[in-house]
Formats: sequence, structure tokens, C-alpha cells
Amino acid sequence: MTCLFCRIAKREIPCYKIYENEYSIAFLDPAKDNDGHILVIPKKHCKNIFDCDDFTLSELMRSVKLISNHLVNTCGFSGVNILNANGEAAQQSVGHFHIHIIPRKDNDKIDAWIKLNGGITSLEEIQKKLKVVEQYE
Amino acid sequence: MTCLFCRIAKREIPCYKIYENEYSIAFLDPAKDNDGHILVIPKKHCKNIFDCDDFTLSELMRSVKLISNHLVNTCGFSGVNILNANGEAAQQSVGHFHIHIIPRKDNDKIDAWIKLNGGITSLEEIQKKLKVVEQYE
Repeated sequence: MTCLFCRIAKREIPCYKIYENEYSIAFLDPAKDNDGHILVIPKKHCKNIFDCDDFTLSELMRSVKLISNHLVNTCGFSGVNILNANGEAAQQSVGHFHIHIIPRKDNDKIDAWIKLNGGITSLEEIQKKLKVVEQYE
Repeated sequence: MTCLFCRIAKREIPCYKIYENEYSIAFLDPAKDNDGHILVIPKKHCKNIFDCDDFTLSELMRSVKLISNHLVNTCGFSGVNILNANGEAAQQSVGHFHIHIIPRKDNDKIDAWIKLNGGITSLEEIQKKLKVVEQYE
């Protein structure tokens, strides 16, 4: 067992646990880059959203929602940002699916919007390239 | 009907559609801040994750996953960032639940990690404040 987050899920490595159920576990990000930065992971190993089965994804998001509501209803926060990176090109750092929750308060001076490059291609052209062909119309 | 995204979901307002099924619709963000920036929304109105029922959330994420896999398997991307803001304090701009997908390629010069304030409280103290009390142990 070499996956760090699998070892945390199995409690072989300690964590500052925030929530756990049969399918997911949530703990404080040890990076301490923000007071309250939480990681939510499936206990079952998957690398990211690409290879995560629908049931595991659904349960993971149920936990993300439960924790988000807890932060707002019980802990005095006013909002949450939910962030997730899939693939090394997207800056995924640990190869076990994980969702970041950043609790927010009014005027907390965090900027949770990322810096983008600016679009250069027309929306028509992008739509042609990215549209999913087989779908409900 | 005043909600902009409800009007897009009902096709009363045009969009550059990327994907649609019974429960969700995905379209290009008209802001054009990035080539390929996609918004995925539930057709059923909810404001954000806080008031979104589990079924709608599950279906929304199934669409996010389908589109993410399509971007990587068919459109030549190597990864995706998934971003979502809940509440005005978290910089949510439109009051209808929406999930951003940012397609990524190696060395695309996007930085998808946000700027945080730096943690000042110990992880022990934060855990005491944020831990969900009723849970599986």
C-alpha cells in the first residue's frame, strides 16, 4: 500500500479528521495554507474523477455537501469553495481523488477565482470541438 | 422566471451547448476568459450545493464526469479543474448552482490553485471547531 490517501483512509496514518462515513473520509489539509482547508476523499482508491465510479462519486459529493452545510449552519461560515484537480496537467498533486473545501466568510480577503489565460478562439469554434455528440436533444 | 440559468436550461436564452441530458445542461461560459471554460448546471433550480437535493447533485456530477472524460478521451486535453462557489461570500456570481470545468493541457500556463491567506490556527484547534459531531467512527 503506497498511496498516501489510502493509508489515511485506513487510519494507518493519522489525520485531523473532520468527517467519516462508510464511503468517504474528510480531514484537514496538513499544508495549513488556510484555516479550515478540508480534503474529502473516497475510501475506495480511484485516481481522480476520470476513473471514479458513479456510486463512489455520488457518495463523495454527499459528504462534501454534508460538510459544507455543517460549516455554514454550525461553524459560522457564510459560504464554501469546492475545488478539484484531475490529472497532473491540472496540478493534481496526490494520485488519489480528493476534493478541497475552502470555508469562506464575508470580506475574508481570499480570492478563490483562478487566473486564466484569456480566450482567443470564438465560442462557435470551441463548441464545435468540445460538444458531446451523443446526447439528449 | 427571472433566473438567468433557469432560462438557459429551458432554452429561452441561447447558449453554446456542450452537453444536455434530462437533469443537467452544460454550455460554454460566455465570459471567454479561457478557451473551453464550461459551466454545468442542474435544470432544476437550486441556489448552490447547500440546497441541492442528493439526486440532483448526483446527476450533476455524473454529467461533470462524462464531460471531463470526453474532454480527455476525445478532445485532446490532459486534465480538468473542477471549481464551484457556494454563497456570495465564496464569490458565487449567479444564484443558480453551477460547476466550472477548466480543460487543461501540459504546460498551458494556467495556475488553477487559488491564493489563500495562510493558516494561523493550529490544526488541533481547527479540528475542534469544524469536526462533524454525529458520524461513523
